[in-house]
Amino acid sequence: MSDSKHALILLAAEGAEEMEVIITGDVLERGGIRVTYAGLTGAEPVKCARGARIVPNDSLENVKDKKFDIVILPGGQPGSNTLAENEEVGKILKKQAESGGYIGAICAAPIALLSHGIKTDVLTSHPSVKDKLVKGGYKYSEDRVVVSDKVITSRGPGTAFEFALKIVEILEGAEKSNSLIEPMVLKM
Amino acid sequence: MSDSKHALILLAAEGAEEMEVIITGDVLERGGIRVTYAGLTGAEPVKCARGARIVPNDSLENVKDKKFDIVILPGGQPGSNTLAENEEVGKILKKQAESGGYIGAICAAPIALLSHGIKTDVLTSHPSVKDKLVKGGYKYSEDRVVVSDKVITSRGPGTAFEFALKIVEILEGAEKSNSLIEPMVLKM
Ligand SMILES: [Cu+]
Repeated sequence: MSDSKHALILLAAEGAEEMEVIITGDVLERGGIRVTYAGLTGAEPVKCARGARIVPNDSLENVKDKKFDIVILPGGQPGSNTLAENEEVGKILKKQAESGGYIGAICAAPIALLSHGIKTDVLTSHPSVKDKLVKGGYKYSEDRVVVSDKVITSRGPGTAFEFALKIVEILEGAEKSNSLIEPMVLKM
Repeated sequence: MSDSKHALILLAAEGAEEMEVIITGDVLERGGIRVTYAGLTGAEPVKCARGARIVPNDSLENVKDKKFDIVILPGGQPGSNTLAENEEVGKILKKQAESGGYIGAICAAPIALLSHGIKTDVLTSHPSVKDKLVKGGYKYSEDRVVVSDKVITSRGPGTAFEFALKIVEILEGAEKSNSLIEPMVLKM
């Protein structure tokens, strides 16, 4: 257990896209990666973008000094705006980038990469925030998942399985990632 | 608001497949259907199959006499076994069938249709419970989503988008259902 990989999924108190949170976390767990869902404002239940309430495992305050193989930002609104504005999120992303760890962001959440100054050669996002990212200076791709050095980005709830499987592939290998598809009855 | 359609998603205290719960609920909400996540044992947080914790909106006890357009059983283990064994779930399903309402079940959850005696011409399920359902007397299909009279069944987390979109199509029409695909960046 101690040599498992670890992922941190950051949850704003309101408006994370619950499908992106849960598909990503669940698929990573199936891939043997231990997932911590951390609430930005504590470990109280967070209200997601479409009304579901998810209980974080921990608070950002408690986990911010731990080392994670990947730090993941789910999309949804106003969750993505909150991630983009939150100073502690900025600190964690910068530390993750400086230490050579992976960062993942899906849907509208790549705007948090922009606001916190995380560099990457190319990225994607939900189409609704494309202009903002292009104006911000990023090279933009419309691929469903984009891997550029240590930054993995994707486009929306409908690409969340592909995003999560790519993360499993990177952290645990293609064989592990591919082995998850059939038991989920997923069509790739 | 008062003429919105209403869906009930039943959550065992342990082991619902969180992707099936959340993809279904989220897509239905996007389709304008009001979703109640009801906990079988109360409204305390439930622990899902891959470790996420979801807070029900209400308890089964509180909602069991309300009328829902569709009652939905998510899969996952041991959640599906619990749904199959729970008497109150049996009562709700029978009432729903007798009153001409829709019933949905995904992944391993169709075993609860068998145990509670819900009839349908043909159904599907996760491949792992196919034999049990065939022995139980159901005609079995390997289609990703099967609609037979008022019973809608599907196969796993990887078919949950299709399951949910079919429910939206049935309750709110094909135009509404199709309109949800592009904003989610879903590939059908
Ligand atoms: Cu399942």
